[in-house]
Amino acid sequence: MKVLVIGGVAAGTKTAAKLKREDRSAEVTILTKGKEISYAGCGLPYYVGGVIEDKSALIVNTPESFSRLTGVAVQTGVEVVSVDRENKTVKAVRVESGEESVFGYDKLVIASGASPFVPPCKGTDLEGVYVMRTPKDAISLRGAVEEGKIRRAVVVGGGFIGLEVAENLALKGVKVSVIDFARTILPGFLDEELAFYTENVMLDNGINVATGVALEEIIGDGRVEKVKTSKRAMKADACILAMGIRPNTGYLENTGIEMFKGTVLVDEHMRTNDPAIYAVGDCAMVKNRLTGKPQWSPMGSTANIAGRGAAMNLAGHEISYPGVLGTGVAKLPGICIGRTGLGESQAKDAGHDVVTVLTVVDDKAHYYPGASSFIIKLIADKSTRKILGAQVLGKGAVDKVMDIAVTGISLGMTVDQLSAMDFSYAPPFSTAIHPMAQTANVLLNKMDGALDSFTPAEYAAGAAESYTILDAAPASTIPGARHIDLTAVEGPLPDYPQDAKLLLVCTKGKRAYLLQNRLKFYGYTNTKVLEGGTFFTSFEEDEE
Amino acid sequence: MKVLVIGGVAAGTKTAAKLKREDRSAEVTILTKGKEISYAGCGLPYYVGGVIEDKSALIVNTPESFSRLTGVAVQTGVEVVSVDRENKTVKAVRVESGEESVFGYDKLVIASGASPFVPPCKGTDLEGVYVMRTPKDAISLRGAVEEGKIRRAVVVGGGFIGLEVAENLALKGVKVSVIDFARTILPGFLDEELAFYTENVMLDNGINVATGVALEEIIGDGRVEKVKTSKRAMKADACILAMGIRPNTGYLENTGIEMFKGTVLVDEHMRTNDPAIYAVGDCAMVKNRLTGKPQWSPMGSTANIAGRGAAMNLAGHEISYPGVLGTGVAKLPGICIGRTGLGESQAKDAGHDVVTVLTVVDDKAHYYPGASSFIIKLIADKSTRKILGAQVLGKGAVDKVMDIAVTGISLGMTVDQLSAMDFSYAPPFSTAIHPMAQTANVLLNKMDGALDSFTPAEYAAGAAESYTILDAAPASTIPGARHIDLTAVEGPLPDYPQDAKLLLVCTKGKRAYLLQNRLKFYGYTNTKVLEGGTFFTSFEEDEE
Repeated sequence: MKVLVIGGVAAGTKTAAKLKREDRSAEVTILTKGKEISYAGCGLPYYVGGVIEDKSALIVNTPESFSRLTGVAVQTGVEVVSVDRENKTVKAVRVESGEESVFGYDKLVIASGASPFVPPCKGTDLEGVYVMRTPKDAISLRGAVEEGKIRRAVVVGGGFIGLEVAENLALKGVKVSVIDFARTILPGFLDEELAFYTENVMLDNGINVATGVALEEIIGDGRVEKVKTSKRAMKADACILAMGIRPNTGYLENTGIEMFKGTVLVDEHMRTNDPAIYAVGDCAMVKNRLTGKPQWSPMGSTANIAGRGAAMNLAGHEISYPGVLGTGVAKLPGICIGRTGLGESQAKDAGHDVVTVLTVVDDKAHYYPGASSFIIKLIADKSTRKILGAQVLGKGAVDKVMDIAVTGISLGMTVDQLSAMDFSYAPPFSTAIHPMAQTANVLLNKMDGALDSFTPAEYAAGAAESYTILDAAPASTIPGARHIDLTAVEGPLPDYPQDAKLLLVCTKGKRAYLLQNRLKFYGYTNTKVLEGGTFFTSFEEDEE
Repeated sequence: MKVLVIGGVAAGTKTAAKLKREDRSAEVTILTKGKEISYAGCGLPYYVGGVIEDKSALIVNTPESFSRLTGVAVQTGVEVVSVDRENKTVKAVRVESGEESVFGYDKLVIASGASPFVPPCKGTDLEGVYVMRTPKDAISLRGAVEEGKIRRAVVVGGGFIGLEVAENLALKGVKVSVIDFARTILPGFLDEELAFYTENVMLDNGINVATGVALEEIIGDGRVEKVKTSKRAMKADACILAMGIRPNTGYLENTGIEMFKGTVLVDEHMRTNDPAIYAVGDCAMVKNRLTGKPQWSPMGSTANIAGRGAAMNLAGHEISYPGVLGTGVAKLPGICIGRTGLGESQAKDAGHDVVTVLTVVDDKAHYYPGASSFIIKLIADKSTRKILGAQVLGKGAVDKVMDIAVTGISLGMTVDQLSAMDFSYAPPFSTAIHPMAQTANVLLNKMDGALDSFTPAEYAAGAAESYTILDAAPASTIPGARHIDLTAVEGPLPDYPQDAKLLLVCTKGKRAYLLQNRLKFYGYTNTKVLEGGTFFTSFEEDEE
């Protein structure tokens, strides 16, 4: 069996290596446009910041070492320009010489990846304009920073890569602004209220974040001097374009291979509509595990799972890839974030009867050094009681919270099941009631009627406008609000009738819940707890 | 409804507080022998080491603050001495005055906890003998250390508490020995080969660990001078008894309440054989979620889940507690450990057709600062392909690995499902192929015949005695073994016939697997890979 693999970073090398292990008799050849294969794309921002000191750490394997280890033939500097399905050949051009060659295949694996989107505006060719896709990009950006050429930088794009680059430039002492055209950073990844919270933390940590702002032009004489946006022109010595990526699939036009929004459409065996052709990695479309709908997941993690699956299927085993949950985590300035599954509006769009909860919980025993808080949002279906999505912010192990959610959501976990898991606990790691179980308990209280609450998003949207705020914190914290000592409540409140609309607010939500509990007992019917309390929602500024 | 709760630490306070929230009209009273309630028992070793500086951090709530917050009445210094089920009363004695009282109940909750086991040997009453159960124990041990009274300490008992105390005494500069009667530390928690590995790391970190050694006598004139064991007498200024705990259930004798090994037997609603009596926490027996058999789980985490469940059931909701997995994590000198589900022999005893795997995998991107390794052991059932148990060692986030396993095992996850999870990945947190997915992949290779291997335990038991060791590491590492450059293997090995019994060993197992893959292709039928390689199994000393 002669197998050609177009592309040699994560998905291509994984598929090729695994296939050789499954069937050493297969003749497997990787054709790749670049000079390097198998580099650590996700590590590039950290090289910029010097967190990864040495650039050799970015290269996982050279073409030679990979080839020796796996038995896969690798041709670098070879760009595939067309595919002839009828004759089972591809035409390729040597990048340096322009020389054309034709390669035959029995099976073809499309793993040609994606390229950074460069917008059609003026100035993108100036010195000081960067993208972040290959080791070369990271090396040249860090080089310019270390030569003192970059004091101010504008990062265009508030997605994971943009924010990671921003953090790492800031680590190097660069004054960084991040702009994004969307209403929030991480659009589609974090629910809006969590994205706003994250923006505030980043501002507190010295990153200037401007959303709803479009890039119009990069201005300069030879090199970047200003970045002109839809709002104003910003002084800058560098402009990093992190506006997303586009699949490298232009050469597949008119081949009849089924495409979807520029990506190659595959079934759960990573097979295209041509049974001799597979596609994996950033150029391929996978599906959402929950909705079954196409979802693009240009991530190293997906590339590896899909690559393994493609190799197994090529070798004659039937392996199904169940799809992604859209999981992501990132370390950002001052805060780590994570998300998986469906966001609140995605869940509604998918037809679920949605209930959500937001909690602020300890991330380890409160008395253990380094203890901090998680902000956890769970999204669930009221009727099936299954968890659909989870998002988390915090200084600590957001990846743990996400991986629990990933495992649970993948297996159809209900809120009730989450509540009673025998999670690991010792003070250096967690709390006696696990942060996720704690959150599940609050959601259970809400679903079962023991807790009546507004989410921070409902509050921000004005749901509490006709409510009187009662401050249930141990000491008064909300300017202008009546403070109530919940421990003294032993009957109806003198100044409020039992049908009064009362919004109960404390620091995180727990005392407000205890107050609501008492007030209900004394006949109150219209109280609401503000989830996440003043920890999440500020009552000092920006109050609506 | 009049509810009496006997005991006021984790399970008692949780049950009482939650019940009041569910039904504020219930009259709930806690009777507790001690002066404090609701203290952080799991934090005590960390107070000893000064990791937790201030003793006030150990107290979660005073009886007064708890009572004000929850509406639960609390009587401290009151020891229950008998239960009269017929008349629904308990008899109690005030500890200070000896005065007797009788309390009536509609429902009774037994949450009287457990006490440290003190062996019936000489010298346990000497100054310098400690247990570790209440804040007072920790405060007096740290006090003695800080007064310079303790230079050498012997900890008797290699369970979680004993090892945590050992780590914290060592932090304070005390020379520490840990002895245990069992063959290994953490007997029943870690499988033997992992326990041995942990012992070696602790030795490297300055803790003297002696197993198979029994305490015979504590010797001294007024205060501890020597600890006499079945092997030898050890000089010591202090002896910490961490030999386990015994349920405080003596007062229940002859009540007809069904007991099991000293604990109170309950159903999944936390109810005893008397429908008016519940039991929760360290004095109660819960069940193993996988085997359905009784399992004692005297842990703060279990206390909280069971307490919540008991309260919900008392308030008329039917909540089932599905039981525990025996999850545990701990930070020990030089290494963190975790376990959940069935150990290898437990799984065999439960009738499973068991397959296990041990891997050594990166805990985050290898190039990210602080990256280290996990040693992960998975225990699965060959026919159902379900994961039954997991154990982990490492410097990093062992709690994450465990919590994934807990969630998966609780929901019946197969190895195949674990392999394809969309886990969270970014370089500061994890690897592109998640450590758990990586381990699942190796186990899949083993289950599906792509990998033939010996586990470290099989190797230690002599399974490879008739095998020739081939060293597959990049450079020769095993004294006396033939080194093979796997990249040069393009046909049968000149010196070994194709039916030769060959044990392939590299640093972690990956290159040995690649070598096996090639050798199989060239007709070799008797090769075995050593799982975990030389990272886990030492070929320099103690070789069998």
